[in-house]
Amino acid sequence: MNFRCDVRPGDEQHVRRMVASSGFFRLDEIPVAVELVEEALRKGAASGYSFVFAEEEGRPLGYACFGLIPCTLSSFDLYWIVVEQECRGRGIGRDLMMRVEEAVRESGGRRVYIETSTRDQYAPTRHFYERCGYAKVAELPDFYADGDGKAVFCRQLD
Amino acid sequence: MNFRCDVRPGDEQHVRRMVASSGFFRLDEIPVAVELVEEALRKGAASGYSFVFAEEEGRPLGYACFGLIPCTLSSFDLYWIVVEQECRGRGIGRDLMMRVEEAVRESGGRRVYIETSTRDQYAPTRHFYERCGYAKVAELPDFYADGDGKAVFCRQLD
Repeated sequence: MNFRCDVRPGDEQHVRRMVASSGFFRLDEIPVAVELVEEALRKGAASGYSFVFAEEEGRPLGYACFGLIPCTLSSFDLYWIVVEQECRGRGIGRDLMMRVEEAVRESGGRRVYIETSTRDQYAPTRHFYERCGYAKVAELPDFYADGDGKAVFCRQLD
Repeated sequence: MNFRCDVRPGDEQHVRRMVASSGFFRLDEIPVAVELVEEALRKGAASGYSFVFAEEEGRPLGYACFGLIPCTLSSFDLYWIVVEQECRGRGIGRDLMMRVEEAVRESGGRRVYIETSTRDQYAPTRHFYERCGYAKVAELPDFYADGDGKAVFCRQLD
């Protein structure tokens, strides 16, 4: 497994494939994920989006996208963390998370926020965040849609 | 007092002046407000940012910027609501808020979220939101900076 932090032309397609294959996102969420890659390719660091890709034999199997939250001094948002369906259970998500936190620390970040759905389908996702040291700090009912609330997780970095 | 919803070239300067004059924002927040105007001028409705301007004799004295939150079906964010310092106390903020909520309802929106600081300086802001029917639904300590948390307000529209 190889990890890289640069975004390359062609990553739009890899991200589309990974997000679609994960089984955890709605169809209308896929272009939102791809858009962040396009913006990073266009603007570089000025986009505010940083990436970590996990690759095997040159093929990305998972990725994370994160960045400093605008108007905050040291709070980062983990916008996306995705592992291809058939590669789950190998610790790739955990590795991605550790690399994100390292990069956040190096940029002077003090805490990482993650937003996710309160739906039953996302219970494994929420447990994953808790195992990674994140605590739920807020819950907004019906945020995404009726019966689909938003949970906000946070980890304070030392 | 006249209200308009279209964004016009030159509004970048008006927004810069209003945000700076309000006394409620840090210097580094001003370009963030201006950027949303530029994006709306460039992309139109596709920017995801809608505006209401309150004008007197063609001069904007306050404005609001809002939009559907990406990846949600009917949740809107009120990104900015600003009234020039010397025009406060005339009910302009309340008028802007009502027009925002009307526009959100017309777009099928069901709730409006507002994020603001937990600092003492913003107590009048938080009271204004509460008087407008908003309830605090979350609080994230140290979100913006040490000792400067984020409060999330929400109003459910009928």
